[in-house]
Amino acid sequence: MPEKTANMVILKDFYGPLLTKKQQHVLNLYYENDWSLSEIGESLNVTRQAIFDLLKRSENSLISYEKKLGLVRKFVNTSEKLEEIYMLLNSEEESNEPYISNALKILREIIEEV
Amino acid sequence: MPEKTANMVILKDFYGPLLTKKQQHVLNLYYENDWSLSEIGESLNVTRQAIFDLLKRSENSLISYEKKLGLVRKFVNTSEKLEEIYMLLNSEEESNEPYISNALKILREIIEEV
Repeated sequence: MPEKTANMVILKDFYGPLLTKKQQHVLNLYYENDWSLSEIGESLNVTRQAIFDLLKRSENSLISYEKKLGLVRKFVNTSEKLEEIYMLLNSEEESNEPYISNALKILREIIEEV
Repeated sequence: MPEKTANMVILKDFYGPLLTKKQQHVLNLYYENDWSLSEIGESLNVTRQAIFDLLKRSENSLISYEKKLGLVRKFVNTSEKLEEIYMLLNSEEESNEPYISNALKILREIIEEV
């Protein structure tokens, strides 16, 4: 059974529009609406196995897009850094010198990477 | 003649790995090495017209990826905001209250969008 991992959901969010309309439809039923393989098969008048195969092919495509473009990896990395800056700037400390210079350092990193 | 716009170069940087190896090779010769259509044609032993067609098809693919995923638009938008924060935090002002709260507001926007 294809795994309903957070990783697959984020891959779908990024690269889903590159799949066929049918693949997108089935992935949405499976990941967003939480239908079973049998339920999707019945609704589309095909076997459970056909849905399994379609999901597997779709997931392999998503994984292949990520291998080529690496946008999810980049996105996770950037988000973590932005959260870090946000916490730094949002800290309760009164003196601004050290945390502002830290924030600036991280911002410069992001700007050069994004 | 395909235009050597900054826009096409950034599309190539984002989505180039989704093209065929041959398309990537020709795009690199054209955009990075600044070869002419004739020069590329000669080196690959095909006509200038064949290179023109290959470039046009490649560019249409890149534009289609951007229409589906919109990652370049997002990237430009995020980069502008990060630059804005950087300038805010890097300003010469002594008082930290207003610009820090501005920076925080923009950071929150990015974090929710990226």
